[in-house]
Amino acid sequence: MTTPDESLARIGARLREELFDFLRIPSVSARSEHREDVRRAADWVGRHLRATGFETEVVDTPGHPVVLGEWKKAGPGAPTLLIYGHYDVQPAEPLDLWTSPPFEPEIRDGRLYARGATDDKGQLYLHLKALELLMGSEGRLPVNVVVVAEGEEEIGSPSLLPFLRDYRDRLDCDAVIISDSQMFAPGVPSLLSSLRGLAYVEIHVQGARSDLHSGAYGGAVPNAATVLARLLASLHDADGRVAIPGFYDRVAHWDAEARAAIGGLPFDEEGFREETGAPGLQGEAGYGTLERLWIRPTCEVNGLLSGYTGEGAKTVLPARAMAKVSFRLVPDQDPDEIPALLRRHLQAVAPPQVRVEVRELHHGRPWRGAPEGPVFEAARRALTRSFGREPVLTGEGGSIPIVSDFEKVLGAPVLLLGFGLPGSNLHAPDEWFPDAHLEKGIETLLYLYEELEG
Amino acid sequence: MTTPDESLARIGARLREELFDFLRIPSVSARSEHREDVRRAADWVGRHLRATGFETEVVDTPGHPVVLGEWKKAGPGAPTLLIYGHYDVQPAEPLDLWTSPPFEPEIRDGRLYARGATDDKGQLYLHLKALELLMGSEGRLPVNVVVVAEGEEEIGSPSLLPFLRDYRDRLDCDAVIISDSQMFAPGVPSLLSSLRGLAYVEIHVQGARSDLHSGAYGGAVPNAATVLARLLASLHDADGRVAIPGFYDRVAHWDAEARAAIGGLPFDEEGFREETGAPGLQGEAGYGTLERLWIRPTCEVNGLLSGYTGEGAKTVLPARAMAKVSFRLVPDQDPDEIPALLRRHLQAVAPPQVRVEVRELHHGRPWRGAPEGPVFEAARRALTRSFGREPVLTGEGGSIPIVSDFEKVLGAPVLLLGFGLPGSNLHAPDEWFPDAHLEKGIETLLYLYEELEG
Repeated sequence: MTTPDESLARIGARLREELFDFLRIPSVSARSEHREDVRRAADWVGRHLRATGFETEVVDTPGHPVVLGEWKKAGPGAPTLLIYGHYDVQPAEPLDLWTSPPFEPEIRDGRLYARGATDDKGQLYLHLKALELLMGSEGRLPVNVVVVAEGEEEIGSPSLLPFLRDYRDRLDCDAVIISDSQMFAPGVPSLLSSLRGLAYVEIHVQGARSDLHSGAYGGAVPNAATVLARLLASLHDADGRVAIPGFYDRVAHWDAEARAAIGGLPFDEEGFREETGAPGLQGEAGYGTLERLWIRPTCEVNGLLSGYTGEGAKTVLPARAMAKVSFRLVPDQDPDEIPALLRRHLQAVAPPQVRVEVRELHHGRPWRGAPEGPVFEAARRALTRSFGREPVLTGEGGSIPIVSDFEKVLGAPVLLLGFGLPGSNLHAPDEWFPDAHLEKGIETLLYLYEELEG
Repeated sequence: MTTPDESLARIGARLREELFDFLRIPSVSARSEHREDVRRAADWVGRHLRATGFETEVVDTPGHPVVLGEWKKAGPGAPTLLIYGHYDVQPAEPLDLWTSPPFEPEIRDGRLYARGATDDKGQLYLHLKALELLMGSEGRLPVNVVVVAEGEEEIGSPSLLPFLRDYRDRLDCDAVIISDSQMFAPGVPSLLSSLRGLAYVEIHVQGARSDLHSGAYGGAVPNAATVLARLLASLHDADGRVAIPGFYDRVAHWDAEARAAIGGLPFDEEGFREETGAPGLQGEAGYGTLERLWIRPTCEVNGLLSGYTGEGAKTVLPARAMAKVSFRLVPDQDPDEIPALLRRHLQAVAPPQVRVEVRELHHGRPWRGAPEGPVFEAARRALTRSFGREPVLTGEGGSIPIVSDFEKVLGAPVLLLGFGLPGSNLHAPDEWFPDAHLEKGIETLLYLYEELEG
């Protein structure tokens, strides 16, 4: 038998061609004009699973479909893995900041550039190909496998929990594997042990009924943009802490050992800063950069819009101002509670001359997993074989809100096994996936199935 | 001889038809895509003056043209009036807030709705028609008249001062008349004695090189939108005063008599609030609403843009954030000095982890005139005849930056004689001009020429 490495090298061109096809579909779940594209991406995944020998359904939901693939012929007593991924992607704007167009994949300097290359089409594809290769060479899998691929992850997975509940019986499994995360560093394989949660809102301020002339009315009529800026400024104190009363009440504090383990990771802070291009790093006083990213909650302004933003000078007194604001949460903060705390805070600080409204967009629970069990151990060994060193345990600042849903509904541990790299521009222009990790990722998954069988 | 009133009534339909033609031209000077439209509006004015018997030139500038019309046959010793107006308009966005399209004029409930109806095409038109009617009935004018109509008023008149200097000899006059302002209230004719100046800038904040994932980077990397909000919040103190050091140093204080005159005007504060639709009025502590509008300087946010502002939730950490900010200035503040004070303030309060840049867009000097002289007296009598009551002296919160340029270059007093009404949505959706003031305005100007002759 050839090693996975050798056989993969032979099919490298086809591997990329197929992935490019997948990435070319602009499956932007947040934009209604891409509804059909999202459906096309679902069908693409469904066709692939069907061709591999999976019983496959593209399940309609009130939003975008869930693709469900099942192969349960591993025999009595064989464990079942559930593989989750998402085939939808973030909006690609601003388009003019992409070096090559977001939906025309291109490899440059060992990086595969495309919207969704890492998050998450590229990583979902690793699983689809590993299954296909195994079925192709062995005619069977060593374990039962269920694949769940959704199309609403980037808009908060509103249909996934209902799906998990409706299909509960067919989703029974011993572990859930998700590849939607990153390695700690190039050459350093990683298993994720915590994720931050999310509460995402819009804050709307309305002053006058409609925009006014800033000369004729300025100085006497409330300016929605000015008020919004002052409200946003009230969300942090001078130490970079979130200044909303009650915000930290439920925050679980990591113990000294866990913080020491984070402190011991080979983290290049200056390299991290350089990669972002920011003149300096900035955050909550009393915590290091990795702690600020993994174990501390945040409040971020994600978007601002008010008044006149086109070319030139329009002397308008804006009637309306909008901010998109999101909070990254850590255990045991409750994403349902955060918008209420925000509302109470804004009511207390907003001037009575304007109307302030908080609209909830979506949210997800923070998560901390237990790094143990047979699937965790098999993944540890597979990563060690593939990358030549033991994986490190990391946290992740981003959210995969459905992780805790899987644990809750299916009662199975979740394993987060990511092949992306830091700085791969998730949710930003020029998103990329390390080209060599196409083979490395599939190889690791093939080892994983071997380790599970062994 | 019929009164102006009667003869005007006979040509009302044609008056409106012609004005509608003028208003239909989207002469938005701030937008390069409307360059040809601005030129068409200039040609429209030029044709009109030429048909009236004026020697007319459409003078090219580095920006939009200046229309110069001259009629200097009033005979030896006759005084010369210079009439200034502008044929360019503000951008019309947001278009969806207009009841009827901005460049399709429509009369509803006694109001003539269109972008430029009051500011300033409608009022410039009053002058063009008064001159045409006089020339038509008398074959001559009682005074020499020079008309200067520019197409860059809404972008700060960058070419006007050079034009005034280049054409200085042909612009010699005894008074300048500008109709680009409003009456104090319906039925209350007004002469303007002060204008605020303007300094308009953009503030740009840059943190990271490009937008980042707010989960993967949030909490450790500076957020340009958050920083911008905090910078904007630093521009005012809790009393609504501008908190930029040095900002008030040159502010001339109105004496008790002037403040008492303002206090004595029949101002309906609750009506003013209701007209704006704001839940309350708001401004600098220690001053009344009219004082806040006329004699106190301001700082207004005119526009905000950062990160993701489309539909749905994009978890982006914005690399860039932009605010348009303008200051209304009062004598003797210096618009050239204000951006420098702002820069110094922002340098002092901005965190070192971001780059902050202030770009100057345009500016204009504040102005206070002396309410006296033969043309002022003639206008006072003309308004009294036309409206049946003496005009009041008012201030204006907006800016007509070129007023002080005219005074400086031509050495002639400027008379501000406006026929708009409060609440006419200048620079906002649904701009309107009181339909009846088409006749009232032309009538007043015909009386003015009579009074100047008499």
